[in-house]
Amino acid sequence: MSNLRPRKNVDNGKAVESTESDYIDTDDGILEKRKVNLSETIASGSKRTPAVLEKFVQSLPEKGKVWVVRGISAIIMFSLLGLVIYGGPLTMLITIMVVQVKAFSEIINIGYAVYRAHGLPWFRSLSWYFLITSDYFFYGEFLIDSFGVALSRTDFLQFLVTYHKLISLTLYLVGFVWFVLSLVKRYYLRQFALFFWTHITLLIVVSIAHAFIQNLFEGIIWFIVPILMVCCNDLMAYVFGKLYGKTPLIQLSPKKTWEGFIGAGISTIIFGMIISHIFCNYKYFVCPVQYDEAEDRMTLECQPGEMFVPKEYNLPQFLSNISKLFGFGDSIVLYPFVLHSFFLSVFSSVIGPFGGFFASGFKRAFKIKDFGDAIPGHGGIMDRLDCMLLMALFVNVYFKTFLNHDTVQKMFHQIHNLNAEQQLQLYRMLQESLQNKHLL
Amino acid sequence: MSNLRPRKNVDNGKAVESTESDYIDTDDGILEKRKVNLSETIASGSKRTPAVLEKFVQSLPEKGKVWVVRGISAIIMFSLLGLVIYGGPLTMLITIMVVQVKAFSEIINIGYAVYRAHGLPWFRSLSWYFLITSDYFFYGEFLIDSFGVALSRTDFLQFLVTYHKLISLTLYLVGFVWFVLSLVKRYYLRQFALFFWTHITLLIVVSIAHAFIQNLFEGIIWFIVPILMVCCNDLMAYVFGKLYGKTPLIQLSPKKTWEGFIGAGISTIIFGMIISHIFCNYKYFVCPVQYDEAEDRMTLECQPGEMFVPKEYNLPQFLSNISKLFGFGDSIVLYPFVLHSFFLSVFSSVIGPFGGFFASGFKRAFKIKDFGDAIPGHGGIMDRLDCMLLMALFVNVYFKTFLNHDTVQKMFHQIHNLNAEQQLQLYRMLQESLQNKHLL
Repeated sequence: MSNLRPRKNVDNGKAVESTESDYIDTDDGILEKRKVNLSETIASGSKRTPAVLEKFVQSLPEKGKVWVVRGISAIIMFSLLGLVIYGGPLTMLITIMVVQVKAFSEIINIGYAVYRAHGLPWFRSLSWYFLITSDYFFYGEFLIDSFGVALSRTDFLQFLVTYHKLISLTLYLVGFVWFVLSLVKRYYLRQFALFFWTHITLLIVVSIAHAFIQNLFEGIIWFIVPILMVCCNDLMAYVFGKLYGKTPLIQLSPKKTWEGFIGAGISTIIFGMIISHIFCNYKYFVCPVQYDEAEDRMTLECQPGEMFVPKEYNLPQFLSNISKLFGFGDSIVLYPFVLHSFFLSVFSSVIGPFGGFFASGFKRAFKIKDFGDAIPGHGGIMDRLDCMLLMALFVNVYFKTFLNHDTVQKMFHQIHNLNAEQQLQLYRMLQESLQNKHLL
Repeated sequence: MSNLRPRKNVDNGKAVESTESDYIDTDDGILEKRKVNLSETIASGSKRTPAVLEKFVQSLPEKGKVWVVRGISAIIMFSLLGLVIYGGPLTMLITIMVVQVKAFSEIINIGYAVYRAHGLPWFRSLSWYFLITSDYFFYGEFLIDSFGVALSRTDFLQFLVTYHKLISLTLYLVGFVWFVLSLVKRYYLRQFALFFWTHITLLIVVSIAHAFIQNLFEGIIWFIVPILMVCCNDLMAYVFGKLYGKTPLIQLSPKKTWEGFIGAGISTIIFGMIISHIFCNYKYFVCPVQYDEAEDRMTLECQPGEMFVPKEYNLPQFLSNISKLFGFGDSIVLYPFVLHSFFLSVFSSVIGPFGGFFASGFKRAFKIKDFGDAIPGHGGIMDRLDCMLLMALFVNVYFKTFLNHDTVQKMFHQIHNLNAEQQLQLYRMLQESLQNKHLL
């Protein structure tokens, strides 16, 4: 313990006295001191109220005020969601992009605050540049997979399609070289920390946005049902927790209880099946987004896949007995999607909340209350998205595994990107293989 | 500056006096103090000599000793590389896996040292678990793309193929939930830091290993030529720097000079073309690795692609004039691959070194000399791999863009994974499209 003395910080041979706020420490106890700083730097939304709303709620008691603000925000969010859904796939796509940019900026700003990046050369430009290159790559891949045939109609777009991977890598490498050239001895550690911070943020934000977009283009139902499930689960966990909550669930979030967890799970499963059943009735929700070459626009018209056509299921014995007691038959007519939605809602109730626990652990680690202040009464965009993270990935993998109805369409786009000779070669291989299996 | 006093670290209400070595700071000056600690924790290989080698060089002067050790290590490495190449694709595949594990452990160990992870629950198991899940996902995808048809022969493998993405996501989520459950209040910040550190390491190590394996399976030449180019560039930069070096190249690595950079670039281009020409003569090097169903083993037999068949090129005017002066014709016969190798060697000389600069910036940021001590006289595995990082990615994207000769093969594997009805549908779509283009 001999080194318990004010430290001197040697910088270019000149001793600079350092203050405690000069460090970010890995030890939680030490960060205690920084709490104030970070909370001041990062706007915290759950406490902030816009002037017009403030006026509206000023006569209410403090506790009620928070809930009214939170409720109004929630209503506005749902209305916006409704409008966006009504606006069609392109509106939804743009909304996902905007939300992604906001979420990226929230996480990156925490990084700036943690590493006090103000003096670092190029730090802001670099982060945003990397976001642009990642988006260019991922959305490009997505567009090529989904609309390759349409894209190949003009020479310029054909060029972008053919060299997409190389252009993306070049863009990324420009950023990489730029970062290396921007390194300044004094800031090495912080620059590397922010470089890695940016990449982790990209990994989270871009992959989630990408998953959402893919889900959306498989059919709006794959986009909206998971979102509503997560909202329902969030809300019901709170309601059941308030009403019956006794047994703490996890050390990380002391307010969460087993009663809330289980109640929310059951509610989400029932709610999920009901909304799935409703949405299954509309082509607008169940058809994949496709590009109509004749009309040169995106369409949501299709012959609904078998998952969205009602089907008769025989009930298992014990359910059939109950059903007969009430005078019903021993079978039930359902959209197959409703059964699939059961697995989605189980996931959103059991694993989904871990996205939230992860985010709250993250916030506790950096001693911040919220990710930002975009939504009065709720916090930042990321505070609302935390449970959606794992959900979007799961839905994406789920339909890729079980129900990828337009795989054929996608492969056709890929084949279309080959040259004539390769297309012919593939055609002959396929012909031979189908003949061997006596399918032709 | 009022808070320049010994700090108290509040832990469970009990004040704990903290020493400087308790922190990792973002400020380089502060880290100065940690230098000793980190250097002690992380084995540094460039100074370490195994006993048998030490005995051999003990009579030499200190300076010479280092170079003899370094040279002997280099010879051993090249011999091993030769043996591995001789051993065939499977030996190479296993070697890449082993090197990947070692590189992962080097970077992860630095993380452990930086965040003094000793008290953290499950930190080691979690890192390795995430490596296993990432490898499972990426190698699985690779195997399915390359050998899907062969894999679908047994039911169990077919199951693994069909549910590959879902199994991988489940494995990852198990790790994610495990991490969240392992969070302990006292260590939040360090646990998250190590979680992100692990993910960045995975991003680097797994993607590079994956790129190398893909390159290798396109033909050994895509694997070995880039490696030799990078080695040549490293070596010649040193030689030219020693002989003619005057003008410093980059602040980050004070020993690097423009003279070394340019000399190495020219040497690498010439060397690259020569070795490319030599390797082009052997099917063993130019044929993609394929699975021979009849013999149930990997083969390197093929009709070499057009890139590996000599072709006559007309020289441009000024070169043709020079050529005539020496009594040669105005055309030249070359393997087209040799021309492609020109771009690869330019990349390895101009952009490749930035991988090295990045790694040395990283080492400086954490005040460590080497990544490890695996190779006497050289440091860790990562110290030798640093310039290979960008190179492997570039080669991968390069042949995907310009020369993906077995795209057809890969697509056929993908189509083979569809069900019979989808295969027929795709067949008909392709037939119609080819008929419309009058290709059938």
